[in-house]
Amino acid sequence: MSVTAAKGFTAAGIAAGIKENGNPDLALVVNNGPRLAAAGVFTANRVKAAPVLWSEQVLKGGLVSAVVLNSGGANACTGPLGFQDTHTTAEKAAEVLGHNAGEVAVASTGLIGIRLPMDRLLPGVERAAGELSEHGGEKAALAIKTTDTVHKTAVAGGEGWTVGGMAKGAGMLAPSLATMLVVLTTDADVDSPGLDAALREATRTTFDRIDSDGCLSTNDTVLLLASGASGITPGEAEFTEAVRAVCADLARQLIGDAEGASKDIRIEVVNAASEDDAVEVGRSIARNNLLKCAVHGEDPNWGRVLSAIGTTSAVFEPDRLNVAINGVWVCKGGSVGEDRELVDMRYREVVITADLAAGDASAVVWTNDLTADYVHENSAYSS
Amino acid sequence: MSVTAAKGFTAAGIAAGIKENGNPDLALVVNNGPRLAAAGVFTANRVKAAPVLWSEQVLKGGLVSAVVLNSGGANACTGPLGFQDTHTTAEKAAEVLGHNAGEVAVASTGLIGIRLPMDRLLPGVERAAGELSEHGGEKAALAIKTTDTVHKTAVAGGEGWTVGGMAKGAGMLAPSLATMLVVLTTDADVDSPGLDAALREATRTTFDRIDSDGCLSTNDTVLLLASGASGITPGEAEFTEAVRAVCADLARQLIGDAEGASKDIRIEVVNAASEDDAVEVGRSIARNNLLKCAVHGEDPNWGRVLSAIGTTSAVFEPDRLNVAINGVWVCKGGSVGEDRELVDMRYREVVITADLAAGDASAVVWTNDLTADYVHENSAYSS
Repeated sequence: MSVTAAKGFTAAGIAAGIKENGNPDLALVVNNGPRLAAAGVFTANRVKAAPVLWSEQVLKGGLVSAVVLNSGGANACTGPLGFQDTHTTAEKAAEVLGHNAGEVAVASTGLIGIRLPMDRLLPGVERAAGELSEHGGEKAALAIKTTDTVHKTAVAGGEGWTVGGMAKGAGMLAPSLATMLVVLTTDADVDSPGLDAALREATRTTFDRIDSDGCLSTNDTVLLLASGASGITPGEAEFTEAVRAVCADLARQLIGDAEGASKDIRIEVVNAASEDDAVEVGRSIARNNLLKCAVHGEDPNWGRVLSAIGTTSAVFEPDRLNVAINGVWVCKGGSVGEDRELVDMRYREVVITADLAAGDASAVVWTNDLTADYVHENSAYSS
Repeated sequence: MSVTAAKGFTAAGIAAGIKENGNPDLALVVNNGPRLAAAGVFTANRVKAAPVLWSEQVLKGGLVSAVVLNSGGANACTGPLGFQDTHTTAEKAAEVLGHNAGEVAVASTGLIGIRLPMDRLLPGVERAAGELSEHGGEKAALAIKTTDTVHKTAVAGGEGWTVGGMAKGAGMLAPSLATMLVVLTTDADVDSPGLDAALREATRTTFDRIDSDGCLSTNDTVLLLASGASGITPGEAEFTEAVRAVCADLARQLIGDAEGASKDIRIEVVNAASEDDAVEVGRSIARNNLLKCAVHGEDPNWGRVLSAIGTTSAVFEPDRLNVAINGVWVCKGGSVGEDRELVDMRYREVVITADLAAGDASAVVWTNDLTADYVHENSAYSS
């Protein structure tokens, strides 16, 4: 049901000809109100794509009436002319929808460093506006795919209200750099500050904790739009949990579709002195190429986990570290533990538990294995 | 000529049976004086192998009479018994050489988390002592290889004095985790503080700036031993430059032999606001898996360079960044520059120049491409 699961939203997805292969490449999501509240989080990369720079400005007003999304080009590192292209896109959408361009967000994904074909994109916006529908969520989700093998949608909610969403991305694994684009919609009656608080809390423990290859995109965008069409204002905790549930669902789908990956690795850091420590350790393990290769080879190589922990500033004593792989404590007290032959790593999901023995905080970070297919996909993309 | 190029040193390399395949695996380097001055730098990993913990203590005294090195096992994450093994190794060498065990450094490389076969190692130390020779440098360099395809030696010096050295390691690329072990020797008459100052300055801009896969070993060790046998005390700058030259030569050999690599990538960061900024940016580029894949595919994908720069805290403005690949400025002012088709990436060495347009500091960091062979070697090693 995607972004049209919540009342008050219409969407469309079409093939505008931005992609050479004729696949769908342009999505439009429209908030028909009565509210136009919105919140957004964007990439922390300091080199930001034009649509990110534009949408950050739009979100400062707290109102978003429509989102234009395209695949087939990231519009990143395209200079002032690229920014003008994004501006023109928003103006075109505003014109055909009768909206204010300052309330139209834009998101793009695809190759860096090439201009978008505006002669195809702008007519596409007009055509997409003509196809807007309360059932358009799936088509919109399809149109933002790049190297994704499947489109990603999720829904949650409470009594009488709904949060829905769509996502694209191969968990930052996609090439050049592909992008995590997410649009969430809700018919709950929540104002912009309320949306912002819920979205930041939800993304902090979901999208911020998937890290398939350590590469931070120039285009990452997560938007949450509220129409208020249900007339219901949920409790803050209940609403945040629904947003978090949709984000967690979509984040898990991103990891599951990461480019070239054959394993999804759930890294649980437990007994840390602080949540920050747990996240730092989880991320360090998630980014260790040698460990990611070992998991690919179904090799329970706990030494690489310890070595990754050792590069962090987290509170721990080396001789108190314990590591389990799929439930077998192969490392105890910083040294050899249970027999590594007991570890069964045949299945796609692999769980690595790192016990820091330093407190009671914890965190979960997801990553993927490193494979020859990843190398192949990312060495052969643009040339 | 390796570690016996300088006067006052003898060395040996033998097959002690630590490696199952019968290859050489034990090296001994002895300083016959008259001086026994030494300095060392060790891995920054907080999970340190037993020989690192031992040798750090030895170096605090500033005197090293001998170094025992083994391949075939890292003696990391082996607990108190593993530390005892290192201690016993030093005592055995001291006994057969008539030295003080507190002046015998130990270095190990190989798989993490397994005990060394002391029943083979200790007799090996005795046998190596019997084979010590002024011409033993090559044999010692051969005995510390793990996945290295070639042994690495280098020599520099001034009038009447010499700095020589040997290294093993595949630029931190080696599996599980392989280790960079380096022993440098000199017959210059320099005391321990002088050696320490020269070694830290030399490694800061050489070994510290090669980063083939971002993975920090538990065992990295670089030792510099002075015999004073030349009777000459070079000027501080001249001596430091000779040590730096040997380190730079060995570092370049490590990158050139990195596991699975098909390209050596020289990353030059120029016009940075500070040297720290330049190093941070160089390292970020060196660790970007997507860029490393692109270089493997001979794809001048400058967007991935910008994206890597964007994750740093260095001083720069995105729209003033320039990037050249093999001399072609494919990115100018943060956007498209010269035609990427002009870039020729057929040769093994690839030069990426990142111009931050923020000052006059610079740094060079070396890395390798990411290849399917790297994945294969590191997913199939211990299982």
